[in-house]
Amino acid sequence: MFKVRVYVNYKASILDPQAAVIEGAIKRLGENGVSDIRVGKVFDFVIKADSKQDAEAKVDKISDNLLANPNMESYDFTVTEVN
Amino acid sequence: MFKVRVYVNYKASILDPQAAVIEGAIKRLGENGVSDIRVGKVFDFVIKADSKQDAEAKVDKISDNLLANPNMESYDFTVTEVN
Repeated sequence: MFKVRVYVNYKASILDPQAAVIEGAIKRLGENGVSDIRVGKVFDFVIKADSKQDAEAKVDKISDNLLANPNMESYDFTVTEVN
Repeated sequence: MFKVRVYVNYKASILDPQAAVIEGAIKRLGENGVSDIRVGKVFDFVIKADSKQDAEAKVDKISDNLLANPNMESYDFTVTEVN
């Protein structure tokens, strides 16, 4: 059994208006030292697999075919064995 | 300067219909060994602060007052010094 965390973010080339809105809201909170905001999604799940490589291959397939929009988003993930 | 990653997830008590939809879609992809899906948001940004403790205090304030909905969501974060 493997514990998985998949991060999905907009590609750097994609303008993220949500991030600009959040930056403004943070400034109104009185925190002016914040920059380079990026907003993404995180998917946590558990997956059965024969090996860590097998788990990584499954997660890559799930991310590429479902969790991330290949046109606008990129993804990376961590896979950790759990007993 | 500190690099920050804030994770925001639904509290365990909150039913997340999106997770159930994703689990069904993953099964239709032919991957039946997936369970315990949770979907959250991740906020990456850089923050100026005098110390790591100072950065953590600022991030806690930003998360609690803005990034997470205290009624339904919980948050945690990592703060890493960058030169």
